[in-house]
Amino acid sequence: MAQHAIVLLSGGMDSATTLALACEQGFVCHALSFRYGQRHAAELTAAAALVEALGVDDHRVMDLDLGLFGGSALTDTSIAVPDQPSAGIPATYVPARNTVFLAMALAWAEVLPSQDIFIGVNAVDYSGYPDCRPEFIESFERMANLATKAAVEGRRLHLHTPLIHLSKAEIVQVGLRLGLDYGLTVSCYNADAAGRACGTCDACRLRAKGFADAGVDDPTRYRKSPPHGTE
Amino acid sequence: MAQHAIVLLSGGMDSATTLALACEQGFVCHALSFRYGQRHAAELTAAAALVEALGVDDHRVMDLDLGLFGGSALTDTSIAVPDQPSAGIPATYVPARNTVFLAMALAWAEVLPSQDIFIGVNAVDYSGYPDCRPEFIESFERMANLATKAAVEGRRLHLHTPLIHLSKAEIVQVGLRLGLDYGLTVSCYNADAAGRACGTCDACRLRAKGFADAGVDDPTRYRKSPPHGTE
Repeated sequence: MAQHAIVLLSGGMDSATTLALACEQGFVCHALSFRYGQRHAAELTAAAALVEALGVDDHRVMDLDLGLFGGSALTDTSIAVPDQPSAGIPATYVPARNTVFLAMALAWAEVLPSQDIFIGVNAVDYSGYPDCRPEFIESFERMANLATKAAVEGRRLHLHTPLIHLSKAEIVQVGLRLGLDYGLTVSCYNADAAGRACGTCDACRLRAKGFADAGVDDPTRYRKSPPHGTE
Repeated sequence: MAQHAIVLLSGGMDSATTLALACEQGFVCHALSFRYGQRHAAELTAAAALVEALGVDDHRVMDLDLGLFGGSALTDTSIAVPDQPSAGIPATYVPARNTVFLAMALAWAEVLPSQDIFIGVNAVDYSGYPDCRPEFIESFERMANLATKAAVEGRRLHLHTPLIHLSKAEIVQVGLRLGLDYGLTVSCYNADAAGRACGTCDACRLRAKGFADAGVDDPTRYRKSPPHGTE
């Protein structure tokens, strides 16, 4: 019997690669995206295109008003997205975002039912978000296995983080091996409606460096000139 | 300087008592309720009345479409609310509900900022929900302290569960000592728009038993006759 998995899908390169990996591993994938007050909808358009390209039949987009609380450059337009690398955790950090997203995935997993959740967190070339670290993921899994009727009845949850120890360049190589079209993904925090990237935010810089280090062309479309080092 | 706390407030007797306790302890309270696809809005009306009665200035109601996943008698009208005690975890269990609610409280706590979250879970006279047990609460707190920028920077989160080891009768006594008007609360899973209770669901039965054991009158308004033993 095929195993079902929930895959958190933002529409960026990491979650797209994670979805491609989950499909390759033979899971029947159910993609979950969020309209959480982020600045632009381009990443949801990207998520929809990825789901179609990868032949995933079940994709749900949940409305989540994290803007009710504010506190992040991604959900509060009064806070600017930094265009330079920041010391410490940057303003684009969304409070408790992965906790919230994983909690929702857990709820869906229990109903489906599914015992497998994939999340494309990465603790190598990343922005220093605390909820991307292995110790957070392990702790969430332990908590989840105390939280649900499913776990109490012996159906334990497994959190899969296949990218967590990979560099961005290695992620690109995995995706290309799987035939993933990175032209469908949007990483930029400031993308315009057509999905064109700014080239200067943290997400753009990390992505560009990943493709440059992998020695392959990044199909990202930029609004202006691409970031330094990728021309 | 006054300490701020988030208090999860459903509008039922347990969360109302928890809010009264948090206020008594001197916290500046911020109440958080959810419109999560539950069957009736009477409990949100109750939450608003409680917040006013207790002089809490900040009350936010978050829309949360848990009905997107279904799987519970509380969020899926195709599943009946049991009118008899059930063996095991009942159909009113909402998958991962407290994980989801606490994740949202965590997000708000980080923004406020606040290091204190109150939740009125109870592991004595309860329906056997796994996410009301002390081991779940302790595990969530550990996870939360790895999840956020606040925790990484040393501002640890404390989860307060003042009712967790109390019987329903003891909860009633605490609330009455604090002058709480239980006539404002709605516990019933099947309440009508006016907040009148069915008298037969699990929540009604547990509540009625609590008041009976405490030897005080329950101001609950019933649609029909009250449950056996409380007349």
